[in-house]
Amino acid sequence: MKELPTYAALVDSFRKLPGIGTRSAERMASSVLEMRKEDALEFANAIENAKNRVHKCPICGLYTEEERCDVCTDETRNHAICLVVVSPKDAMVFETVNNFKGVYHVLGGLLSPSKGIGPESLAIDTLKERIKAEGIQEIIMATSPTLEGETTALFVARVLEPLGVKVSRLAYGLPAGSSLEYADPLTLSRALEGRKTL
Amino acid sequence: MKELPTYAALVDSFRKLPGIGTRSAERMASSVLEMRKEDALEFANAIENAKNRVHKCPICGLYTEEERCDVCTDETRNHAICLVVVSPKDAMVFETVNNFKGVYHVLGGLLSPSKGIGPESLAIDTLKERIKAEGIQEIIMATSPTLEGETTALFVARVLEPLGVKVSRLAYGLPAGSSLEYADPLTLSRALEGRKTL
Repeated sequence: MKELPTYAALVDSFRKLPGIGTRSAERMASSVLEMRKEDALEFANAIENAKNRVHKCPICGLYTEEERCDVCTDETRNHAICLVVVSPKDAMVFETVNNFKGVYHVLGGLLSPSKGIGPESLAIDTLKERIKAEGIQEIIMATSPTLEGETTALFVARVLEPLGVKVSRLAYGLPAGSSLEYADPLTLSRALEGRKTL
Repeated sequence: MKELPTYAALVDSFRKLPGIGTRSAERMASSVLEMRKEDALEFANAIENAKNRVHKCPICGLYTEEERCDVCTDETRNHAICLVVVSPKDAMVFETVNNFKGVYHVLGGLLSPSKGIGPESLAIDTLKERIKAEGIQEIIMATSPTLEGETTALFVARVLEPLGVKVSRLAYGLPAGSSLEYADPLTLSRALEGRKTL
């Protein structure tokens, strides 16, 4: 049986997704072939549309389809308190908790000398500018409680020290070594409430 | 934070894939947004191309981009021995084992009264026609060793009895209750060698 080029290409595309191995990619590719044609085209369009219309808010880095995201433009939110997250997805997780009414700032990664990710790769300068321009009074570092996450939180706290802004981090309600992504809303909520000044 | 319509649509599309829950779908959707634009478009095209070009072989039901699949048209294979599988994906798994040189027949499902899947939903009549037309002498039932898989194998064996064809099933090298999809090549190879007449 020869490999089908279009099927192989589809398997390759699925394999590029996070956490997807060859077997899972083959399952997904097969399920696309078993879909009704409309559903498969809807799937392809969903990828194109999302990629074409969604971009990052120039202020905070969250996903938006508008010029600026609806957190930055929401006057009812507290713009003096800013939750610093690694990715837009982490911000979405906090929005499901529903007890944070401040604004966000997306770092875009964690410091990692071994992967060659230094401070210049992260959105730290834009955070400093926002603190001055927007009068932010408290920064909450919401990085995962891992070595890289804690190092990054401490580094940002040190860099922001001269600005006189209060910098806290999430409470250790989060189980160590775990990924922020899989924390349940209650754990996230407690971690938010018990935050500690760095 | 309002939901982004295009992002939500993309998450929905990923959720339709087998074994993908909301969190995994969100991770995949986010990773699409983080991809380079070329990669995302390549992904969308891969879905469209595969869906447009790949179809099922009218003889055996395997995936092909040609009029007939390359197993059915391969003169070097043994057309007197036919491995009956549930899905094209299962046939692909046997091709990786490399010790089966016969042809395939895709049933398209398993008998399941509770899901309303009766014999008329499966490609049993076309199998009977093939046995007569192609002179098939042995049918190997390669269904998973589950209740539905064994019931289907026995049912097909009984239906084929009047045709005088030998019907065997895979040996019980497969661990019971497991899914064929996750068996390793060695287990599959042993199961193929130790097949038993029904």
